[in-house]
Amino acid sequence: MPGNTFGKIFKITTFGESHGRGVGVVIDGCPSGIKISEKDIQAELDRRRPGQSQITTERKEEDQIKIFSGVFQGSTTGTPIMMIVENKDQRSSDYNNLKNLYRPSHADFTYEKKYGIRDFSGGGRASARETLARVAAGAIAKKYLREKLKIEILAYVEQIGNIKTDIDFNKITKKDIESNIVRCPDKKEAKKMIDFVNKLKKEGDSVGGVIRGVIKNAPIGLGEPVFDRLNADLGKSMLSINAVKGFDIGSGFEGIGMLGSEHNDQFFIDKNGKVKTKTNFSGGTQGGISNGENIYFRVAFKPVATISKEQLTVDKNGKVVKFKASGRHDPCVLPRAVPIVEAMAAITLMDHWLRKIVGDR
Amino acid sequence: MPGNTFGKIFKITTFGESHGRGVGVVIDGCPSGIKISEKDIQAELDRRRPGQSQITTERKEEDQIKIFSGVFQGSTTGTPIMMIVENKDQRSSDYNNLKNLYRPSHADFTYEKKYGIRDFSGGGRASARETLARVAAGAIAKKYLREKLKIEILAYVEQIGNIKTDIDFNKITKKDIESNIVRCPDKKEAKKMIDFVNKLKKEGDSVGGVIRGVIKNAPIGLGEPVFDRLNADLGKSMLSINAVKGFDIGSGFEGIGMLGSEHNDQFFIDKNGKVKTKTNFSGGTQGGISNGENIYFRVAFKPVATISKEQLTVDKNGKVVKFKASGRHDPCVLPRAVPIVEAMAAITLMDHWLRKIVGDR
Amino acid sequence: MPGNTFGKIFKITTFGESHGRGVGVVIDGCPSGIKISEKDIQAELDRRRPGQSQITTERKEEDQIKIFSGVFQGSTTGTPIMMIVENKDQRSSDYNNLKNLYRPSHADFTYEKKYGIRDFSGGGRASARETLARVAAGAIAKKYLREKLKIEILAYVEQIGNIKTDIDFNKITKKDIESNIVRCPDKKEAKKMIDFVNKLKKEGDSVGGVIRGVIKNAPIGLGEPVFDRLNADLGKSMLSINAVKGFDIGSGFEGIGMLGSEHNDQFFIDKNGKVKTKTNFSGGTQGGISNGENIYFRVAFKPVATISKEQLTVDKNGKVVKFKASGRHDPCVLPRAVPIVEAMAAITLMDHWLRKIVGDR
Amino acid sequence: MPGNTFGKIFKITTFGESHGRGVGVVIDGCPSGIKISEKDIQAELDRRRPGQSQITTERKEEDQIKIFSGVFQGSTTGTPIMMIVENKDQRSSDYNNLKNLYRPSHADFTYEKKYGIRDFSGGGRASARETLARVAAGAIAKKYLREKLKIEILAYVEQIGNIKTDIDFNKITKKDIESNIVRCPDKKEAKKMIDFVNKLKKEGDSVGGVIRGVIKNAPIGLGEPVFDRLNADLGKSMLSINAVKGFDIGSGFEGIGMLGSEHNDQFFIDKNGKVKTKTNFSGGTQGGISNGENIYFRVAFKPVATISKEQLTVDKNGKVVKFKASGRHDPCVLPRAVPIVEAMAAITLMDHWLRKIVGDR
Repeated sequence: MPGNTFGKIFKITTFGESHGRGVGVVIDGCPSGIKISEKDIQAELDRRRPGQSQITTERKEEDQIKIFSGVFQGSTTGTPIMMIVENKDQRSSDYNNLKNLYRPSHADFTYEKKYGIRDFSGGGRASARETLARVAAGAIAKKYLREKLKIEILAYVEQIGNIKTDIDFNKITKKDIESNIVRCPDKKEAKKMIDFVNKLKKEGDSVGGVIRGVIKNAPIGLGEPVFDRLNADLGKSMLSINAVKGFDIGSGFEGIGMLGSEHNDQFFIDKNGKVKTKTNFSGGTQGGISNGENIYFRVAFKPVATISKEQLTVDKNGKVVKFKASGRHDPCVLPRAVPIVEAMAAITLMDHWLRKIVGDR
Repeated sequence: MPGNTFGKIFKITTFGESHGRGVGVVIDGCPSGIKISEKDIQAELDRRRPGQSQITTERKEEDQIKIFSGVFQGSTTGTPIMMIVENKDQRSSDYNNLKNLYRPSHADFTYEKKYGIRDFSGGGRASARETLARVAAGAIAKKYLREKLKIEILAYVEQIGNIKTDIDFNKITKKDIESNIVRCPDKKEAKKMIDFVNKLKKEGDSVGGVIRGVIKNAPIGLGEPVFDRLNADLGKSMLSINAVKGFDIGSGFEGIGMLGSEHNDQFFIDKNGKVKTKTNFSGGTQGGISNGENIYFRVAFKPVATISKEQLTVDKNGKVVKFKASGRHDPCVLPRAVPIVEAMAAITLMDHWLRKIVGDR
Repeated sequence: MPGNTFGKIFKITTFGESHGRGVGVVIDGCPSGIKISEKDIQAELDRRRPGQSQITTERKEEDQIKIFSGVFQGSTTGTPIMMIVENKDQRSSDYNNLKNLYRPSHADFTYEKKYGIRDFSGGGRASARETLARVAAGAIAKKYLREKLKIEILAYVEQIGNIKTDIDFNKITKKDIESNIVRCPDKKEAKKMIDFVNKLKKEGDSVGGVIRGVIKNAPIGLGEPVFDRLNADLGKSMLSINAVKGFDIGSGFEGIGMLGSEHNDQFFIDKNGKVKTKTNFSGGTQGGISNGENIYFRVAFKPVATISKEQLTVDKNGKVVKFKASGRHDPCVLPRAVPIVEAMAAITLMDHWLRKIVGDR
Repeated sequence: MPGNTFGKIFKITTFGESHGRGVGVVIDGCPSGIKISEKDIQAELDRRRPGQSQITTERKEEDQIKIFSGVFQGSTTGTPIMMIVENKDQRSSDYNNLKNLYRPSHADFTYEKKYGIRDFSGGGRASARETLARVAAGAIAKKYLREKLKIEILAYVEQIGNIKTDIDFNKITKKDIESNIVRCPDKKEAKKMIDFVNKLKKEGDSVGGVIRGVIKNAPIGLGEPVFDRLNADLGKSMLSINAVKGFDIGSGFEGIGMLGSEHNDQFFIDKNGKVKTKTNFSGGTQGGISNGENIYFRVAFKPVATISKEQLTVDKNGKVVKFKASGRHDPCVLPRAVPIVEAMAAITLMDHWLRKIVGDR
């Protein structure tokens, strides 16, 4: 069954494998008249690129984006936009040792049972390399939302292992986030995180964490009751990212101890005559529809499954075998996942913005 | 834009308002030949019914289900199944005082801004009464999954406010869950929860909590990469329930402190020759596809927005007004939300089971 | 698999069987703020009603529509609109003789082979009674298109058997169409048609024909390349009506003998400065998108399968049996199919109008 | 709004423009384990290729297909299959004269009004070059249907202008069709057609015609009531092809003169004990579901809009201008459209086969 499409109007379909010819995306439903260049897209991809810093994998991949269709003389035309990154460094022979075994907490076993066949070179379709296609599509959504609607979409690393910042997400800027290689806007905690990740890198181990997302200036009215609530679609978009195990919005799991009388966001009229809420435990959506307040959410990532430590696992023939990943891998994906979270948020918002134009009245 | 449909093959569309003529559902895509009676459906609805115990709202609603189409001589025929509960106790005049004001943390404000009009009687479409349609559809899915595939779907209250059980979800039975009115299988904690909710009821306040869901015996191979992962669709299904603010699966938000070497679920061969994992931090899905282990997840509910304490809010004309809910309402929705969580899990599993039949090979 | 939904934004799902509890529709995606009453809907249903004239079936069915949800104080609210007609005259015992046999050119055989079970009372879901749900949904679309966009949607009987009118469809009014019971605006040919149908009624035989549809004043830009062309979706909508075997638009099957130099619709500037075409062989769409000219199309209906003449057929056990329909049936469905064709055209246009608002720029 | 996707389970999305970087397709939902090579695809593309004979355009385009993803070691893997043909001979400067004018009966005017921008080089997305993506996707569907289900899908030219064959479509083979360059299996009429097209080529004019499609050995039970009938989806698939203006199935427009007693397909039991029909006016579907008889249909093509004769038209500024197409174009697209019709039929059948597996029981 098809499952490689996200969105109803701004509809993206991704394709490609980590060690095949490349990875790409088709966007169907992008409005015409948006100025787009490969440079715009590349800037976002570079934030996701492997080898960008000492704490990411050392693999060097240039990940050059190519716009294949749907853009004419620098503008989108309303026809499908296809974009592609061709793989340069395929090295699939490296992976012959993976042919018959199931790496722990990877998708090797489930893909093989589901499809009866799997591309065993570097994870194939299950590789996080697929997410570059999302970042490329997200770059267009982000540009449109920013330029046309002044919506700002930010994400940053809030927690790695047990190291956590409690910085106020309402005050963060993109510059703060990009000020260090771990993409945590709290310098002090960022330093600790970097040290921790470097230590794990040496040990060949890995760690997870939390990315915080913030959407500022979203218009009132995004989200479609009752199943396609904005929060439900944001949740799905995040839970579809590799290694994500949890999502919450507003007070989320942390608001459980509160009483209704504390948690309710009372309305007031601000100095501009606008209806606003005093608190924002709802996280910017009520009844599944955006209410004009900041939308904020958390995304929980498990530790990367690929580690250099020796593990026991089984192979196709049911034999127990030893396994130790030999490639160069990220000890912590979160710094590189920041643009992915932003991209999925942008795609979800874009889709709901286009849905809103129609559906309301 | 439409947003009232969930599922791709087992496709449910709900309709109806809390104080209109009634609430119902159309299921399109249900396989033929399933034995179904109104009794089967009613049993699940009764678990969601208001007034079922001292800790729920005292409103008495019978919520009698009627199967309108798609079932012939006791069997589904493959044509759309429409089911309906007609509202008996409409009393919409009670709600005239809500006509012009926006209740805090309700959907009054967002619906009005989105649609320019709203059914102000009791929340209209935004009322949790809509979820009875999901429970009805879920009853059919549950029956099919249980009888045909031996899949068991359970949910229970794990936490209310700060009262929490750490009982092992792998060992819970339906009987344990139904053994008390708060639907927490840990008798000691259940007692505390009931006392706490009763206290809040007197005070006119409310509280949230966590429902744990467990799916046992799911076949390997459910879930479609890359966007329609089983975990992503489960997450969306839960986040579409009223008052839900968070979802996690497997280790979720609680696994963040773990290292990869601790978190990876190592494979082994069990005594029946089956590939199993020693631990199950993945929560039964890897690469978005079920791996045959128990699927377990948490759903975070915020406190009910309707409380009897006086609050400040604003009305349509931008005036600040005092507001105090007069109706009879639940201080804590979780005991009644247990069958809703089970229903959405069943619908999601059913949809992915039918998708699997087609898509794999 | 689900197949009971039509439309992407103005999305209708029909349900119900001819001799079950009733037939109905859910519309998801209808804009809010449209004034709608049961009277508006009923007027269209009455044009489809059995027993409305001497040349239709003599079955008396009142077909009273009930709006169940989605309309509040006379206006649509943006939430799902459910409408229903309850069956009064079920008489399913009449149909026991159909239980085991396959009526020629009916869906008895194919439903039974597909689903393993079928509702044998009066055709069940395969009955043309299902189309009343479409007429109800179409009534809302028609009203919106007429009042908001001044779009006029007309259909009439152009041919029955070999009796055919060549009246100019650009000049027809609704009044002309409704001026006689066969709904052919050419009085002379209408008379012949009525006589012919009456003759067949006596003989217990049936006949097919052609309905012509005309859409005036459609805005430029409806239709989505490349698969969801306006002409392709109109075609699908018509071909989904019971007994329809053909569809063409513009010059259609009759333009085959023309050369390109004759067929091309040359552009000119009219006195209001608008770009128009001199001829309109394209039928109002070019590249799948409406160009502002009249959209016109033909829909071919086969003769009704239900006839009172004795036929040979087979039963479930593979025996050859004699069969003669005993009920009261239409010798020619076309007069009653006119509002169905209009309804499906309106639903298709409405959907594409809502799609256009978003997609263009 | 998106409109570039066809199918629900075997879901194809095409992209690309006639004079951009190329044209391609993503198939999402293709089952795993199908043996596929670029050679298999190329064979079908070569039947659609320009310049293949004296009666097609003289443009030489190699149209080399490249499989980009979804195939591993010669087998489909269940992940998205992306295939692409890169444009070699772009020559877009040739088209600068088209920048400001609207060619008669082309999509220039409607695209520009809809999107506010259009790729004016050679028709851009509206060019029939887009259909090569469909032929590529259809090649996989065809192979699967033939090898796994023994379904044979054929199409041939039945009529060009007023020259028509009445050969029995039940007896045609692929070899008959490919025996001459016009792809009409009736040698005598084929000769006349070729002469006629050659004459028009010299005159710079064009002509339309009818392609007949035949599907043999389709299993019983394909098609989903009530909107996604097999005939409705086949109709839509054909009406989405450039220049198509009509579709009928079974007796279609030609059965209108028949009475029900003549038209009904009486059932009988054949010598193998199978339920068959004596006649097949239904065209292999009843109630929208295949009944095991041959499915046959007609597709009406208008004359190609591009002709070398001088025409009057208007430009963007509202001026009347003379226009004469200078490129090399087909006087009659039908011979090259035969594989397109086959491809769309195969894609539709494949989709409904996969839908059937799920949906029935």
